[in-house]
Amino acid sequence: MPQLKGALIALLGLVGSAATAPSGCTSNSVKLQWVGDTPDYTTGTTFGVPWPQGKFKPNDTSFSISGGMDMESWVTGYWRDGSVKWSAHAIPPIEDVQDEYTIKASRGSTLKTGSISVDDSDSEVTVDTGKITVTFPKEGNSLISSIQTASGKTVGRNGKLILHSQSTIADDAASRTETSIDYFNFESNIEKVEVSKDSSVRALVTVRGKYQLQSEGEHDDWLPFVLRFYLYSESDSIRVIHSVVFDGEADKDFVSGLGIRLQVPLAEEELYNRHVRLGGAVKGITGLRRDPGEEVRSAQFEGKETPNIDTWDTRVSSRMQWIPEWNDYSLRQLTADGFNLKKRTKPGQSWIDISAGTRSSGLAYLGGATVGGLAVGLRDFYKQYPSGLDISKAASDNGEITLWLHSPDAEPLDLRPYHDGMGLDTYEEQLDALEITYEDYEPGFDTPYGIAKTSEIYIHAFDATPSAERLGQLSKHLQAPPVLYADPKHIHATKGFGSYWDLVDRSTPRAATIEDNMAFLNEFYQGQVDERSWFGFLNYGDVMHTYDNDRHTWRYDIGGYAWDNSELSPDLFFWQYFLHTGDAKVYRFAEAMTRHTGEVDCYHIGDWKGLGTRHGVLHFSDSAKQGRIAQPQYRKYFYYLTGGDERVGELLTETLDADKTYGKLDPVRKVREDGWVPEPGKPFTFGLGTDWGAMAAGWLIEWERRGPRWEEAREKLTNTAAGIANLTNGFVTGSATYDIDARTLTAPPADPNNEGIVEVSHLSAVFGAPEVISEALEYWGDDAPEGFKDAWLDYCYYYSAPASEQEERYGEAFGKLNLYQAHMRLTAYYAQQKDDKDVAVRAWKEFYESTDGFLADQEWAMEEISGPEVLLPIHEAAWISTNAAAQYGLAGIQGLALARDALEEYSPPS
Amino acid sequence: MPQLKGALIALLGLVGSAATAPSGCTSNSVKLQWVGDTPDYTTGTTFGVPWPQGKFKPNDTSFSISGGMDMESWVTGYWRDGSVKWSAHAIPPIEDVQDEYTIKASRGSTLKTGSISVDDSDSEVTVDTGKITVTFPKEGNSLISSIQTASGKTVGRNGKLILHSQSTIADDAASRTETSIDYFNFESNIEKVEVSKDSSVRALVTVRGKYQLQSEGEHDDWLPFVLRFYLYSESDSIRVIHSVVFDGEADKDFVSGLGIRLQVPLAEEELYNRHVRLGGAVKGITGLRRDPGEEVRSAQFEGKETPNIDTWDTRVSSRMQWIPEWNDYSLRQLTADGFNLKKRTKPGQSWIDISAGTRSSGLAYLGGATVGGLAVGLRDFYKQYPSGLDISKAASDNGEITLWLHSPDAEPLDLRPYHDGMGLDTYEEQLDALEITYEDYEPGFDTPYGIAKTSEIYIHAFDATPSAERLGQLSKHLQAPPVLYADPKHIHATKGFGSYWDLVDRSTPRAATIEDNMAFLNEFYQGQVDERSWFGFLNYGDVMHTYDNDRHTWRYDIGGYAWDNSELSPDLFFWQYFLHTGDAKVYRFAEAMTRHTGEVDCYHIGDWKGLGTRHGVLHFSDSAKQGRIAQPQYRKYFYYLTGGDERVGELLTETLDADKTYGKLDPVRKVREDGWVPEPGKPFTFGLGTDWGAMAAGWLIEWERRGPRWEEAREKLTNTAAGIANLTNGFVTGSATYDIDARTLTAPPADPNNEGIVEVSHLSAVFGAPEVISEALEYWGDDAPEGFKDAWLDYCYYYSAPASEQEERYGEAFGKLNLYQAHMRLTAYYAQQKDDKDVAVRAWKEFYESTDGFLADQEWAMEEISGPEVLLPIHEAAWISTNAAAQYGLAGIQGLALARDALEEYSPPS
Ligand SMILES: [Ca+2]
Ligand SMILES: [Ca+2]
Repeated sequence: MPQLKGALIALLGLVGSAATAPSGCTSNSVKLQWVGDTPDYTTGTTFGVPWPQGKFKPNDTSFSISGGMDMESWVTGYWRDGSVKWSAHAIPPIEDVQDEYTIKASRGSTLKTGSISVDDSDSEVTVDTGKITVTFPKEGNSLISSIQTASGKTVGRNGKLILHSQSTIADDAASRTETSIDYFNFESNIEKVEVSKDSSVRALVTVRGKYQLQSEGEHDDWLPFVLRFYLYSESDSIRVIHSVVFDGEADKDFVSGLGIRLQVPLAEEELYNRHVRLGGAVKGITGLRRDPGEEVRSAQFEGKETPNIDTWDTRVSSRMQWIPEWNDYSLRQLTADGFNLKKRTKPGQSWIDISAGTRSSGLAYLGGATVGGLAVGLRDFYKQYPSGLDISKAASDNGEITLWLHSPDAEPLDLRPYHDGMGLDTYEEQLDALEITYEDYEPGFDTPYGIAKTSEIYIHAFDATPSAERLGQLSKHLQAPPVLYADPKHIHATKGFGSYWDLVDRSTPRAATIEDNMAFLNEFYQGQVDERSWFGFLNYGDVMHTYDNDRHTWRYDIGGYAWDNSELSPDLFFWQYFLHTGDAKVYRFAEAMTRHTGEVDCYHIGDWKGLGTRHGVLHFSDSAKQGRIAQPQYRKYFYYLTGGDERVGELLTETLDADKTYGKLDPVRKVREDGWVPEPGKPFTFGLGTDWGAMAAGWLIEWERRGPRWEEAREKLTNTAAGIANLTNGFVTGSATYDIDARTLTAPPADPNNEGIVEVSHLSAVFGAPEVISEALEYWGDDAPEGFKDAWLDYCYYYSAPASEQEERYGEAFGKLNLYQAHMRLTAYYAQQKDDKDVAVRAWKEFYESTDGFLADQEWAMEEISGPEVLLPIHEAAWISTNAAAQYGLAGIQGLALARDALEEYSPPS
Repeated sequence: MPQLKGALIALLGLVGSAATAPSGCTSNSVKLQWVGDTPDYTTGTTFGVPWPQGKFKPNDTSFSISGGMDMESWVTGYWRDGSVKWSAHAIPPIEDVQDEYTIKASRGSTLKTGSISVDDSDSEVTVDTGKITVTFPKEGNSLISSIQTASGKTVGRNGKLILHSQSTIADDAASRTETSIDYFNFESNIEKVEVSKDSSVRALVTVRGKYQLQSEGEHDDWLPFVLRFYLYSESDSIRVIHSVVFDGEADKDFVSGLGIRLQVPLAEEELYNRHVRLGGAVKGITGLRRDPGEEVRSAQFEGKETPNIDTWDTRVSSRMQWIPEWNDYSLRQLTADGFNLKKRTKPGQSWIDISAGTRSSGLAYLGGATVGGLAVGLRDFYKQYPSGLDISKAASDNGEITLWLHSPDAEPLDLRPYHDGMGLDTYEEQLDALEITYEDYEPGFDTPYGIAKTSEIYIHAFDATPSAERLGQLSKHLQAPPVLYADPKHIHATKGFGSYWDLVDRSTPRAATIEDNMAFLNEFYQGQVDERSWFGFLNYGDVMHTYDNDRHTWRYDIGGYAWDNSELSPDLFFWQYFLHTGDAKVYRFAEAMTRHTGEVDCYHIGDWKGLGTRHGVLHFSDSAKQGRIAQPQYRKYFYYLTGGDERVGELLTETLDADKTYGKLDPVRKVREDGWVPEPGKPFTFGLGTDWGAMAAGWLIEWERRGPRWEEAREKLTNTAAGIANLTNGFVTGSATYDIDARTLTAPPADPNNEGIVEVSHLSAVFGAPEVISEALEYWGDDAPEGFKDAWLDYCYYYSAPASEQEERYGEAFGKLNLYQAHMRLTAYYAQQKDDKDVAVRAWKEFYESTDGFLADQEWAMEEISGPEVLLPIHEAAWISTNAAAQYGLAGIQGLALARDALEEYSPPS
């Protein structure tokens, strides 16, 4: 296959004729709706909309939205022919939010309608939204040098990232006396600042850097971070996505505080007109023994400027010096279920308790009635515990507001292994242990080096202290930032996310039961997160792998059964279930999972960049580092729906290097018998399911996005697919030899002459391969490598076919496999592609009669257990494993999409 | 008055005739009932029963209880004539708990019926309950050297108190780099061990000592503690009351961990048969990849010994070395609303989360299926946050269980002042500040030196790992240890708590409304504790003083309006309301208040021993240190109801030294104009209400108890009362001169010739004086100092009498006073004593028409506020202050007891 450099321009040309004669059944107008209830407050919204192949030409399509709103539009995904597959759109804050909008695509160029203004100089980037002007320096420690309101008030200054770390942790309270700890303070140090070009409604400022030591001692710059600041036209809010990669040493570098801090200038404000929306006024004038006047009191409570102090009752005004000034405030959410809030007059004095409760909304404001100020909040504040909000120096000229992503009041982030290896030195011992704890251990592999964490932050600027109502709206906004998405019928019709799912159809009892069951699974997992407290900085977004029926608990402490790390693709189930239903809770759940599995469970730097870690007690403890866990397909839905979330886009890019890891790490090193040793750049063998499936997803997405490496990606995808097609037994071959430089795939070493071997794994098709292949085949269309589709359809047909048919086709049967319920969707895909009703019925037979998933006679119920045998009351469904749940869900969704009619024709065994 | 030394014996003789011819309307049999629901588990119970004067002779009365239970009885209070006023009784654990019991008193000596056995040697005390044998060494660090079960298993060893402290606290996360902190580890060091004599059902071992440094560095022994171990016949539980006094320096000695630790010998137990009832088995064999056998799994879950490992599936038994051993477990309740629970394989490895939730029951077990073990729990675990439970070294030969009364994982206990004095150097400035924040500040007075804290702990010993059901029972027991109390009708009839209260009578609408209102107040305060999070090591049991209507919050941050510290006697209201209603929630609430106000709000050592601190932002921040806050009457109800709780008994004794404090500290120093300076032992002036009222209560109780200083107390009480009677204007004189050595009271310096001055304070009668005087008059009976009763009745009549009558009687009117609603009970007392219906009606007029309490047309309702103007949803009754609530309640209870009939005769103004 020839190199395709420069093909983008050519393709853009090619699509011309298609755009003039649109194909497909979709209209040019697409309804947009909110995920969940219509919000009462928005701060600017970005969303994605898919379009059918061949319909809209990127350089000759104009988008508009109903209500005459400003909108900035760009393309995030292209069809093979260069037509728009996914567009992204940004709209400003909405005054009077409607339940629905309509987006319209038409020929022509879009006029710029937003009023955002960007100044990108050598030293700084300045963005003026019309409401606020924010300045981002290009070097130093301050990420934001100032936030100025339209009226000219500087309400924020000197915004920095703050990091504290320490060299060790005392083992217990007693050992503090003999533990010598070095403490370090770091701040953000800017390395690179970029701003989006041609911004009209939305400007994105991307700041990269590392944390740099500010205190005594020695420590390298570390923890590379990337901050993305999203600013919208006419908005006074800034959305901030903070991502950080751990590149320290687990036993020497303990993060003991990670946050973002901004200064609020207060010099011009009287103390009694300074407000802390957490803990009252800096100098309170309510509740005193003498009354300054009702107007004075109510002004302070409402955050308005008080009448001039000369007008107050002098019994108060003459004694202002005796009223304490409350300088510092601290809200700490150190567990998911409890926060406390306190304040002090100054360092060296004791704190006093203000209040306490279960789950804080995680928003705080510092400012003045006349000088204005800032509110800062962390999304999912309690779910991301240990989190915190500090207001400091509120009685000084420059108050500070610090949002802690990891509170310094919590115990430090401890990324050390949870066991000492237990003497598991040899592969033989490790494989033996795998037999009992299901943990795949190997010394040194339980490392957090290279994992990441992303947090979502909002900064709101005010000309004056906002009302309680406004802060209430912002709190609500923080819990579930509004999401607009396209009519799911439209999404389905465009094939923007393939054709393997469809909308809910409960028109027959059987379909309705499957729908009920899938709804049950979603509700169950959402409930388990809360009941099992699957919360926390490193944990939130994940679920557990397997239940321990004896103990009424998930197997949180048993090797390979604890954190799920996307095992058997719950990410896919929840995202496809969202597409299928539009359920808001599912969206939020899947979003959290995407943010977790993409960051914490994967490596983002180093030799394992692009790989993830197999399920385990710690998210990074298992020694199986594989591409299947970093499967880009898991991130794809969120990526396009959000108009191309830039952080997730970066994660997708990272996986393009996953094929290089095979030159450094042999995934099957513990069972290999041929003595092969990996060597960078040299050909290696990989699996055609989990390995190739993950790489193929990354290549396809890069091609779709026309990313910087899209031609390399297209070639790798197409060549390897062609290679599979050329294997005598296609996918049934199980593995193949990949030449990373030549970008070719050939028969595996065990079958040098490509005579055809049979090696089928139950895992090959349960980590996204079916979705990727289905989408890739649609993407290639007529241009698919010859024989590739047939190779896949063969695999789909034969995986669950009778042994006799397997034998007839491949010369030998596949033997007893597993996950036949899961694989019914491959059978269904075959049936749909071949329009073969008999095979479609066979798919449902596999769905209902397999004994390796949920049984047909399963009672879909949870049991409530609240007796003494459990620590806390829980809902239990001991028959559910995440493997089974995810694959049942995918079978259900795809079976209903691909073999709906045959469902009614299936006859259960009598 | 002559010295009365040796009078006890004489009195005991005197009562002979009375005992042979019992007087009073009460029977010899008294019904006993449980406070609240009948418990399903008890560990031994002690309770008090009052008896009418003259009925039972201490040395010729025998007590028995229904059901043939063992019972040990003793006398806690005597009438003046030496007859039994209060008896105390201890019964063993009950197998099948009944709703009611009957206690019977008869002539003769009680036979010893309990089976407890005590050995008090030079080196140790050994108590054998029949179920466990516990050994208490008399020196060293170990409080408990062993706990052995009846079958001979040693299940506990080396029980110690553990203390960690540090020399300072970093002001914030950044300053950790530059803050040099010395850490110290301490353990209990025994100074004195005593055991109750002649124990049959209950043995009490009292251990006193100080915390002694165990780690490097230098630190005096400090924090004097007293531990009371209660052991009951046939019980396998130990109730432990731990009390500690702070004698450090607030800015140098930060308690960073306070707990009790016991070892559990585990050497003889297989790891998989060791159980942690918090976090599973030390080596789990459920949830594994291979199944050892169902019987094995269920045995481990249920805490039973597993079948022999030789019988297990060898796929498990051959791989036991690969299953992690979980050595350490930690449950942390660092806020009232959230706990988390984690475990680790060993120090140096990361912890993993087990579970998390809101409010832990605070009980943990460590032990083995065959070797047994211990459960340890802290009462009110979450209310007493920051608390914790650690299990350590569970995989070693000696496991440890540590109960943290103050968790080392929380920030250290910070007892420093909350402000720096704000330049309030002179009395003039301090008095000026009092006008605005209502705080009475003085440098150096905001000291915690001498405050105390008491905690209630349970230790349960087991021969084998207990069932989940049993641990559930023990958890429930821990939340509300069962309390038996006598039929309230009987209590009332005996006058054991005086005659100023009666039982509920809702027979008329007016009475029913007052009952509703009092119930409303109780419910409101109970709810506020939770909603306002009035929880925490130092705070639980207190309420706030005044509400800030503007901010929808109590004035937690405003000088004299924050923590209530018994201001206007809520303790009295809640206790009398319990007597009045028998309401279990009220009992628990009042008990918590008694434990708090008696400990934290008072000084127990030093110059201010016997005084308490006026209401304020910290419990010890106000500079007004006064006897009224340590009023022994507040503790009296709990003391006698519990059969003489020994810790509270000790607090009562401490207040006997309160009169000495006047020689060191002048309570009116800031407003004194006569230049008088206190001098130890020299006469001084004190108030006849709050000062004398508090001392009189202490003296009366000591006399009742026939405590070691009872004759001194009797003389001081009687002499000072006689002195008041001799004042020309009696109580209206306001103050008098007290000679501590001569034990006499004479006219105040302002009236050296006792010509009669008029000085009436609204506070004199609202800190227990009416209750104390009423009880004292009944106690003295005919022997009351001549004229004393009239002096009090005059005060009662004239406080709220028309100015003209005051003028006629005293030559001048009292002027505009306050708290007339509160003082209606003085009017009612006068009316009842004089049988004067007109005055009784006047009392109700004061109750309904006073404008200084709750108004007659007050709508008794709370408002639910959950909007953005509050941090958390709350119930608000902004019209309630604790002053008004407490005094309304006391007026209601006592008005109904003393002037019930007149209630219906009162006519509201038209
Ligand atoms: Ca994970
Ligand atoms: Ca208090």
